Amino acid sequence: MTDLTLYSMPASGNSYKVRLLLALEGRAYTHVPIETNTQELAEAKAAGHLPLGKLPALHLPCGTVLTESNAILWYLGAGTGWVPEDALEQAQMLAWMFFEQNRHEPVVAVRASLATYPHLAHEATPERMAALLDEGHTLLDLMEDALDGRDWFCGPSPTLADIALYAYTHTAGPRGGFDMDRFPRLTAWCARVAALPGYVGLSDG
Amino acid sequence: MTDLTLYSMPASGNSYKVRLLLALEGRAYTHVPIETNTQELAEAKAAGHLPLGKLPALHLPCGTVLTESNAILWYLGAGTGWVPEDALEQAQMLAWMFFEQNRHEPVVAVRASLATYPHLAHEATPERMAALLDEGHTLLDLMEDALDGRDWFCGPSPTLADIALYAYTHTAGPRGGFDMDRFPRLTAWCARVAALPGYVGLSDG
Repeated sequence: MTDLTLYSMPASGNSYKVRLLLALEGRAYTHVPIETNTQELAEAKAAGHLPLGKLPALHLPCGTVLTESNAILWYLGAGTGWVPEDALEQAQMLAWMFFEQNRHEPVVAVRASLATYPHLAHEATPERMAALLDEGHTLLDLMEDALDGRDWFCGPSPTLADIALYAYTHTAGPRGGFDMDRFPRLTAWCARVAALPGYVGLSDG
Repeated sequence: MTDLTLYSMPASGNSYKVRLLLALEGRAYTHVPIETNTQELAEAKAAGHLPLGKLPALHLPCGTVLTESNAILWYLGAGTGWVPEDALEQAQMLAWMFFEQNRHEPVVAVRASLATYPHLAHEATPERMAALLDEGHTLLDLMEDALDGRDWFCGPSPTLADIALYAYTHTAGPRGGFDMDRFPRLTAWCARVAALPGYVGLSDG
């Protein structure tokens, strides 16, 4: 028995973010893996385990269920070195996390999903895939520029912003078809994240 | 002279959120209004006033420029009654704010933009508008359910979550064409926000 139960989708970057932070923090948890488009997912929704209908969802011992990957990161990171103490630095970190959910994920992750999942293939028209490629490269350019002269997105050490951005960026090449050779700083940053003590990969455990 | 300068788009809900919180807090600021698709917008981007290329952007006296509407709310709300002190309550508030940016804005606000802006009319196909209508009603249903027995989205008093969600919800009927008669709790909640001391509307100064 552990005090945390995480419902998460093994191949989803949003779910992976939470597993990654739990691993980096060495926190024990019970994992309930649920694949997309399955009876298990329908049952978990019907049972009320996913309040806003989405994975990941973190169940706390007090009965509260937290949703939204980046909000779960906030809860787990509060009071640790993953969250700066200063309100302005917190806002700068959150800006990258909102950027990730509003602009990055709907392009970089969506293109990877369209390229990967057979049940979405009919939506992957050449025009849409080309537009997503262009827009994704523009967003990755913004991230590349932000890493000019720095190792991490906010401040001198890794924060939740790095975990949130890493989830779909490190698979943007192989899954999404983005040209990561154009982004040497992002590539080096991905290697720095993967070298953090306790790191687990997307497909690990 | 004031210590804050806000670049904001008058008709944009994301920009309005920040103006609303500044008004509710009685904070003075210099407003630089910039309309979409204008020379002023291109010039502000070229001058580096909008680091991630988007409005709103808040310029602080220290020279830092904050982007992402909900991150700006966090900075302005820190240490006030708009942000709960407990990390779990903060995470629950942020969950609604990430929901707003990842799920609500790309549907509710986008449908309003497609219906309103002539330069986007070619994207407003009947199929797309119908799909956005259905998805928006589903999202508004989740919000309606969350207000069962409560006046505000998190805790007993209004938080940043209410401001973030209000921006595009209060215009979802007139601008987006959503059927707000289906959502009596949301309608009453909108009236509560509009009755807060210091409130300004989307089109006010």
